[in-house]
Amino acid sequence: MNIKLILTYDGTHYFGWQKTKTGPSVQESLEKALFQILRTPVLTEAASRTDRGVHARGQVVSFVLEEERDLSLLQYNLNSVLPSDIRILSLEETADSFHPTLDAVGKEYRYSICLGPVFDPFQRQYAWHVHQPLDLEAMQAAALAFIGTHDFSSFTTEDVEESTRTLFDVKIAVLPENQLEIRLYGDRFLYKMARRIVGTLVEIGQGKIPVGQVGTLFEKPNRSTAGMTAPAHGLFLHQVFYTANIFLNPLELALESVNGFRFRRF
Amino acid sequence: MNIKLILTYDGTHYFGWQKTKTGPSVQESLEKALFQILRTPVLTEAASRTDRGVHARGQVVSFVLEEERDLSLLQYNLNSVLPSDIRILSLEETADSFHPTLDAVGKEYRYSICLGPVFDPFQRQYAWHVHQPLDLEAMQAAALAFIGTHDFSSFTTEDVEESTRTLFDVKIAVLPENQLEIRLYGDRFLYKMARRIVGTLVEIGQGKIPVGQVGTLFEKPNRSTAGMTAPAHGLFLHQVFYTANIFLNPLELALESVNGFRFRRF
Repeated sequence: MNIKLILTYDGTHYFGWQKTKTGPSVQESLEKALFQILRTPVLTEAASRTDRGVHARGQVVSFVLEEERDLSLLQYNLNSVLPSDIRILSLEETADSFHPTLDAVGKEYRYSICLGPVFDPFQRQYAWHVHQPLDLEAMQAAALAFIGTHDFSSFTTEDVEESTRTLFDVKIAVLPENQLEIRLYGDRFLYKMARRIVGTLVEIGQGKIPVGQVGTLFEKPNRSTAGMTAPAHGLFLHQVFYTANIFLNPLELALESVNGFRFRRF
Repeated sequence: MNIKLILTYDGTHYFGWQKTKTGPSVQESLEKALFQILRTPVLTEAASRTDRGVHARGQVVSFVLEEERDLSLLQYNLNSVLPSDIRILSLEETADSFHPTLDAVGKEYRYSICLGPVFDPFQRQYAWHVHQPLDLEAMQAAALAFIGTHDFSSFTTEDVEESTRTLFDVKIAVLPENQLEIRLYGDRFLYKMARRIVGTLVEIGQGKIPVGQVGTLFEKPNRSTAGMTAPAHGLFLHQVFYTANIFLNPLELALESVNGFRFRRF
């Protein structure tokens, strides 16, 4: 049977989701735990190949389970052998046809920024410290300019044939204790796209890049005039969406957002 | 001149505040940073000798500065050379007579508990995971029984002549996402007292210890029938109080709290 699980992990000590020869990966740790409990090699697929140092609260993973098992006991046993920085939040049977990457219709990434002169030691592995004050109004205006269907080739380091993507919404949440959270809702993200959008928003907030630059970068793609890539350790894969009709009309949703409607959380 | 600073630190990698030959300490790191910037050995005093693995959000430290300095620049320079898990939140001149331990009239400790079957990986170094459900009503009743002036010798591993202490208030805050926070406000805490009170409250919540036991333990001290010592990594020294008149009548304050008043935060 096909199993879908929701995974949360602190990415600090991992070289990203995907197995690699250069260092420990979340996938390798999960597959080791599966082998330890099931006594047979298991291959896993994930919705997002999170980069080195990136965290996840709602990574979606699937694998095929060959024999019948008590699924709640399986989740418990896997959590008992996984390292304490990786945990399975849920584990359930799903349709045989389910594929976490191909079936995903959208993802939400959240990026944490710690403002002010002193970087809270408890945030040092989970936020980007920006000590200069930011122009939040300029950032809000730029966030709106990102929403919609555009050619995002200025905001990736990947060479892909088709770089048109849709951002359903970009929210800048001002949280207590000098925290800022940038929430990005999109269909498919290019390599480093979330971090380059955040870097551009921050440089707009610092007055280094004018707000109008965002539209120009969509019309005349140019990687060198886009903003910097924000550091990996502030980024969280927050959730993955699979309900197709929620995103049936992304531009209409985007317009709703422009007109001040709050994006619905699911 | 006498300098008072407020320090926050992630205690995970330290053998507590105090210098020791067995491993790295917060005091040693701070004194190293002071030597690096001031080029002269400096001795520091702290309000609380936090144990190995215990964190602080508001540790108060003092030291004598021999020469005139720009204090805001000094704070900035010290933060630049301190390890990223220790930060100075404020640094100011104070009365020559000020002593962070002797002048303290009270302290607030906070203890974080993560409930539910799965331990959030982002909390693994900052909370105690208790997966069995807890009887919160029993814990609330027991919390009230702790408030007041009592012989706390059952709740320490230290042998002291005088073990009478006052707890001004004990709050159990139910936070979002299965988090519980126990806030202890007291005059002076005995060795391991905060963690043993938390351990006792949790064992009362688990039904292992009856609520009435708390009163009995004050009347007939007995360390073996008190609860366990909660793990160090859930404990935070939250703040230290120096304004004497706030605690002028602790029992009256305690009674206010019993009658449902919320303890004032400063």
